[in-house]
Amino acid sequence: MSEFYRETSSLENKAELWFTENHTPNVRFSIRVDTHLISKKSPFQQIDIFTTPEFGKILVLDGYLMLTEKDEFIYHEMVTHVPMAVNPDIKNVLVIGGGDGGTVKQLVKYDTIEKITLVEIDKLVVDLCREYIPAVASELSDKRVSLKFEDGLKFVRQTTEKFDLIIVDSTDPFGPGEGLFTKEFYGNCCKALSDNGIFVNQHESVFYSEYANAMKKAHSKIKEFFPYSLCYQSHIPTYPSGHWLFGFASKVFDPRRDLQFGKWENLNIKTKYYNTTLHLGAFALPQYVRDTLR
Amino acid sequence: MSEFYRETSSLENKAELWFTENHTPNVRFSIRVDTHLISKKSPFQQIDIFTTPEFGKILVLDGYLMLTEKDEFIYHEMVTHVPMAVNPDIKNVLVIGGGDGGTVKQLVKYDTIEKITLVEIDKLVVDLCREYIPAVASELSDKRVSLKFEDGLKFVRQTTEKFDLIIVDSTDPFGPGEGLFTKEFYGNCCKALSDNGIFVNQHESVFYSEYANAMKKAHSKIKEFFPYSLCYQSHIPTYPSGHWLFGFASKVFDPRRDLQFGKWENLNIKTKYYNTTLHLGAFALPQYVRDTLR
Repeated sequence: MSEFYRETSSLENKAELWFTENHTPNVRFSIRVDTHLISKKSPFQQIDIFTTPEFGKILVLDGYLMLTEKDEFIYHEMVTHVPMAVNPDIKNVLVIGGGDGGTVKQLVKYDTIEKITLVEIDKLVVDLCREYIPAVASELSDKRVSLKFEDGLKFVRQTTEKFDLIIVDSTDPFGPGEGLFTKEFYGNCCKALSDNGIFVNQHESVFYSEYANAMKKAHSKIKEFFPYSLCYQSHIPTYPSGHWLFGFASKVFDPRRDLQFGKWENLNIKTKYYNTTLHLGAFALPQYVRDTLR
Repeated sequence: MSEFYRETSSLENKAELWFTENHTPNVRFSIRVDTHLISKKSPFQQIDIFTTPEFGKILVLDGYLMLTEKDEFIYHEMVTHVPMAVNPDIKNVLVIGGGDGGTVKQLVKYDTIEKITLVEIDKLVVDLCREYIPAVASELSDKRVSLKFEDGLKFVRQTTEKFDLIIVDSTDPFGPGEGLFTKEFYGNCCKALSDNGIFVNQHESVFYSEYANAMKKAHSKIKEFFPYSLCYQSHIPTYPSGHWLFGFASKVFDPRRDLQFGKWENLNIKTKYYNTTLHLGAFALPQYVRDTLR
């Protein structure tokens, strides 16, 4: 679904290199590339890392842009600080996916978190991100982090541990991440959560119809397991449509009513996207998104 | 800053046509095109209209994408319903720019609005939008609408009329719209407003540094004239970064405190993006945007 092509610029007389992703068959997003740092095939997917003048280093899996150094903070702050500000007493966290380390980088800002288990199916993603994108991946070495290279679907099926927070930092609902959008997975996550546990997952976008249908289904599946199940949004410039949704599900917490303003502010966590005012605003969805999810 | 190119697809053996806009020198956004409906040069700018499979008809001025039929509702609802929900008694409205008719299409939903003056510098934009994009432009024929084809900067310098709402639906801060980002213009708008008047303008995006600097300057200029001057945001998939800002300025209204929930809901205005919950959320800006504007 992507192409890397060189073209000759008549102005500069220099070969140009661009990474292009098709957001739909009729929409393309392209980023100028300085160098193609690494290209490897794991048993699970094709992994490419580029350096770019606009976005710093970018990670591409199977041709899909996963993160850029310039805007990764938006996604990773929104999957972590939203649940942490609802329950700042979270101690035991499970991250499914997230081999780039961006989610862990935000979690380790909380001294109160005691244990982070990261279950990533593809060890090569972790190895390459550590080597080539240390600004994002380096906190994977924090001593509270335990890395497990296995299938997240199988992990939650078998685990007897109870987590206060499960973050599904997955790829799209096709390819290696497909199982992370099934009813079985959501049910097992529900079981693996403590009574006041929180489940957060990436929910794609609903602007383009290809994604909208997958997310409608995913959202209604999650709703069967959790009394509180809401979507919230963020602006991620490099993702399709730029309007990205996350799911927040819990047996006890309403993420708007139960936001711990003062407690979170007192932690003095430094953020570039998240703040407690934005926390509430993120749950205020456009009318067409509300109508699609209903 | 844009290019229309044809390429031969080896799969379908059919020439492909794409419209491409450079969001920065290092980022490109491309839309597949079915037909190039019309291409004309006015004394002010180059005007192109295309039909596209993903976005319907799209309007391009001087190579920059101005609107698509698929997502124009987001921009146009946000510049109109936000001020209308703060003061539903608005009767006399001035629109500067907006020759495509999208802003007027939202305004005419209010029976209570008595007069809409649209000041568009380029008559050809209005003529071509009426002919080729009637789904957006047709309400320009509403009998409350008075069209004036002149420079908005000159119009507000000379007018003796008082408006309850001025909406600046302009192009970017370069080219024909440049004067609409000056201190003189903001001062004259302030004078042309009734005591409880509201001034709304498009504020671009701050994600890419090219736009951020222009907007920082514009925002600080507006602040000199109005006790209340805030930015609010929306997700516009086809604009650079997808994260688009608007300015709300008034001598008396705080757009969050003074939102007339009940009064607006009672009007039963049908919207696809705006709702009163989102109204408040739109003012909850990401931390990096707050920091940039400060």
